[in-house]
Amino acid sequence: MTKRRLAVLGGGNGARTVAADMTLAGHEVHLFEFEKFHANVAAIFDDRTITISGKARNGTAEIALATHDLGEAVDGVEMIAIVVPALYHGLYAEHLAPVLRDGQHVVLMPGTFGSLEFITTARAKGMKARITVTELDTLPYATRIVGPGAVKVFHALPVFGAGVFPSERTDEVVRILKDLYAGVGKFRDVLEAGLSNCNPVIHPLGVLMNAGRIEYSRGEFYYYEEGVTPSTARAMEALDEERLAIGRKLGLDMPGQAEALHAVDYGPKGDLWETLKGSKGLTPIKGPTSLANRYVTEDIPIGLVCWSQLGGMIGVPTPLMRATVEIGIAISGVNYWETGRTMEKCGIAGMTAEELCDYVKTGVR
Amino acid sequence: MTKRRLAVLGGGNGARTVAADMTLAGHEVHLFEFEKFHANVAAIFDDRTITISGKARNGTAEIALATHDLGEAVDGVEMIAIVVPALYHGLYAEHLAPVLRDGQHVVLMPGTFGSLEFITTARAKGMKARITVTELDTLPYATRIVGPGAVKVFHALPVFGAGVFPSERTDEVVRILKDLYAGVGKFRDVLEAGLSNCNPVIHPLGVLMNAGRIEYSRGEFYYYEEGVTPSTARAMEALDEERLAIGRKLGLDMPGQAEALHAVDYGPKGDLWETLKGSKGLTPIKGPTSLANRYVTEDIPIGLVCWSQLGGMIGVPTPLMRATVEIGIAISGVNYWETGRTMEKCGIAGMTAEELCDYVKTGVR
Repeated sequence: MTKRRLAVLGGGNGARTVAADMTLAGHEVHLFEFEKFHANVAAIFDDRTITISGKARNGTAEIALATHDLGEAVDGVEMIAIVVPALYHGLYAEHLAPVLRDGQHVVLMPGTFGSLEFITTARAKGMKARITVTELDTLPYATRIVGPGAVKVFHALPVFGAGVFPSERTDEVVRILKDLYAGVGKFRDVLEAGLSNCNPVIHPLGVLMNAGRIEYSRGEFYYYEEGVTPSTARAMEALDEERLAIGRKLGLDMPGQAEALHAVDYGPKGDLWETLKGSKGLTPIKGPTSLANRYVTEDIPIGLVCWSQLGGMIGVPTPLMRATVEIGIAISGVNYWETGRTMEKCGIAGMTAEELCDYVKTGVR
Repeated sequence: MTKRRLAVLGGGNGARTVAADMTLAGHEVHLFEFEKFHANVAAIFDDRTITISGKARNGTAEIALATHDLGEAVDGVEMIAIVVPALYHGLYAEHLAPVLRDGQHVVLMPGTFGSLEFITTARAKGMKARITVTELDTLPYATRIVGPGAVKVFHALPVFGAGVFPSERTDEVVRILKDLYAGVGKFRDVLEAGLSNCNPVIHPLGVLMNAGRIEYSRGEFYYYEEGVTPSTARAMEALDEERLAIGRKLGLDMPGQAEALHAVDYGPKGDLWETLKGSKGLTPIKGPTSLANRYVTEDIPIGLVCWSQLGGMIGVPTPLMRATVEIGIAISGVNYWETGRTMEKCGIAGMTAEELCDYVKTGVR
């Protein structure tokens, strides 16, 4: 294993976990958070330590650098991990555009087509550096903050995938990623990565089909135990079929969601109902406690808006994805078709399937 | 009050109640049910009596005629009440086409654009008789079968409305209806009547947004008590806005659903949440116990498919209606866009709003 220099951007559960785990693995980690969120990360920034326990490396990690200066954080590092809600990928692109340098590799954990939004936004802000932007299909950990400077990892995914933009440079990026995560695999490109995030399939529709209960129970609700029933699972599978159809139109032969969840050890082999209801990891999870939850506020505008617009663009009907977005709009009062991850934000509006596949391969339109 | 000769077609809760209540009111009632359902109505057909209790007239009604012969049932009557699930309006039209005579009045209780499907189907089957087809916006009773020959009425609506096809003949029909139901009011036409049924607004979307709970509770579910929450009520109101927009495009200024329910004494004045949750009549109602329930299987294909296709035809977007239909399709596996009440079945495909308003007024295309 080569020791790598790595910037981790973000201050939440995921960013702290990546920073601590990678530091204990022997890499040099620079942690960045915006100054306006200083109060959130003060305990870590004060002594540059994070204590990590659970299913990843365990111990107290001494971070090489903790800074509110983005330029300082990324200066001289080869890889920049952005570990923030997908809603903020564009914001980070704006701030990173002036400080990125040739040869650096940006990695979104996870992405859901964030790589396309990132590169489009950064270029619009004048970025000329020759970089790659990679997106993972998932954050490699299920993890939570458990104290001012402490995180606990409940599950570390044994395998997950990376899609690289442009995909011609996949091997170069994955070689570095393998030093961080041995189990990382290659997607064909960011299209495959972006379509492989499981959340837009198993969260929004199921939450909306339990909306009454989530509110009526006032938080006494277990999504996987109570909310996954024959009908809700059937609807999620029908929505998954739309995702797979988009993939096929792009030349991708992806596994269905039940199979994918089983492959990363979430539950037994079977249909989606069997896998989710048979999951020892998922069924004890309580919540969501309200509809103003990322299952709705992130997975709809980032996941389903992007997927369904993509489907519409390349001629794949997505009536259930659209249905889910519309009901989300009705209850939130937010027009996710505009606030979400649109084809314009991804810089791919109007492309055919062929043009799109070509663009993500070469990075050139 | 003039004594009227009336045929009541159907054998369920509603038909039995209409037949008994109208008989006790002094009218001559002929009751018809298809012979293949004889077992269901044997107790009534044997001695031609129905016992009725509750909030309508009370007593044991002696029906003038109970028959499986449709021609005999409608022979010489001036009004023919069809009191069956809306899914069967077309079937009744096929069977009635050869036996209807000039001057007879068909009344659908309720209709939801069934009048248009009825007249189209009957004409296609060769009917030449000069008839009217009226639709009510609701069955005038909340009623249930409580014994082999007995019904109980839980609520008799003080007011409701009738739309007549063609609407030029509204006064003629309502004069007769007033002898049956003093509280009946006039809609401008069958378009207003068909858009005034409350069920497609308050049933399907709310059921789908409680789908997980309905299944998980295995029948221990109270729709209005548990299922109507801030978000589900907000979504129903957003869907109601689409209905009102269709009405406006047709020149109709209709009340919102909360106001309409309050007007017929269902609950207090307020928004939809306040009216439904404050309803002494509705909140004790248990169910639905499964998703294979008329809240889905009738209110989606008959109500929402028809309304949203109508909206599409005259240029009014109905994204939430469409969303609800799509999720209904996903859980039922039935393509309601084809099995439902389409514009073709209503005989109005391709009409502009103007042409449609003209057609329902004159009955001539």
